[in-house]
Amino acid sequence: MAELVDAPDSKSGGATRESSSLSPGRKIIMKYCNQCGNDLEFKIPKGDNRDRYICSVCGYIQYENPKIVVGTVPMLGDQVMLCLRGIEPRINFWTLPAGFLENGESMADGAKRECEEEALITPNVQSMIAVVDVVHADQVHVFYRATINDENFGAGEESLDVKLYRLDEVPWDLIAFETVEIALKAQIEKEANDESPIYHTIQ
Amino acid sequence: MAELVDAPDSKSGGATRESSSLSPGRKIIMKYCNQCGNDLEFKIPKGDNRDRYICSVCGYIQYENPKIVVGTVPMLGDQVMLCLRGIEPRINFWTLPAGFLENGESMADGAKRECEEEALITPNVQSMIAVVDVVHADQVHVFYRATINDENFGAGEESLDVKLYRLDEVPWDLIAFETVEIALKAQIEKEANDESPIYHTIQ
Repeated sequence: MAELVDAPDSKSGGATRESSSLSPGRKIIMKYCNQCGNDLEFKIPKGDNRDRYICSVCGYIQYENPKIVVGTVPMLGDQVMLCLRGIEPRINFWTLPAGFLENGESMADGAKRECEEEALITPNVQSMIAVVDVVHADQVHVFYRATINDENFGAGEESLDVKLYRLDEVPWDLIAFETVEIALKAQIEKEANDESPIYHTIQ
Repeated sequence: MAELVDAPDSKSGGATRESSSLSPGRKIIMKYCNQCGNDLEFKIPKGDNRDRYICSVCGYIQYENPKIVVGTVPMLGDQVMLCLRGIEPRINFWTLPAGFLENGESMADGAKRECEEEALITPNVQSMIAVVDVVHADQVHVFYRATINDENFGAGEESLDVKLYRLDEVPWDLIAFETVEIALKAQIEKEANDESPIYHTIQ
């Protein structure tokens, strides 16, 4: 299983994407203040206790905080719908529909949107099934239980294929990300009426 | 109950703090590229479907995504520990220890750190008890069940006072934020062994 070095959706939240091998908390080196255009410094602001990007002229502080990735485990009966990734990272590996939460949407709505974009379906999104801190990537991945009504799905722009797999036939060696594996295992191991998510931390 | 217009912790994640009345998704108007210092435009990038800040010269995209606020409901027997806010917003109102999740930490560790900072205690952090989308603020608030062992707590830098309240004596009219109220009600209403969080969306 590959280490997760990025979020499943390449389209947004890219600030963590381009240099994921850098140390957590400073993935992108920011040089200029987005308010006044002058040089940024990386130091502890007065009254704070950790390094931040601070403008050397206007004093504006540019905070960086973890991002949320939302996804679903879309079930049709005893089969799960997986998407074959058409983009890097992990092109040609199978994933659950998931991506960065956007401003102005709830987590469940974001999870539903990712299904629409990646698999052309609108699932019935239910309770959370897996919450995974991905500490080295400064991300939290949240997966929801979901159901779909039929096989009217298809490959969205970022997918090469979309297929149903029985839970005892998941292609584990070809799963794109560790958090996707965790969510799939939660779906397999948890009772259908269990609304408590599994909680996991990947350092 | 006041509408939540900010996260409980003023110290970090301030990009959403200074202009919370602006429309979601564009709380802070960014003017300059943090990579090359040239002018930013606000438009839909090629292959995307929503407005982003894009550098007019180098093409760098500065993504903005929701932030995570983590907190606890710290219990000593049948009493909950509340902090009297010493900072705006909602100075002199009672709150649960909570604040922005930082890069490089898990949500449970962040919730514990906020307790250390605001109430000088290290609680035993347990399962999630409340997850609240605060859509208009581009935030998700996550509260954990927690226990403390004794009354060795005190007011941290951002608190004026820290006190224990029996759950049937919570000062509801003086609670700082709606999400804190939701978390306290979850603590009251849920069975002690119920590990499924309540899930709520504030538009």
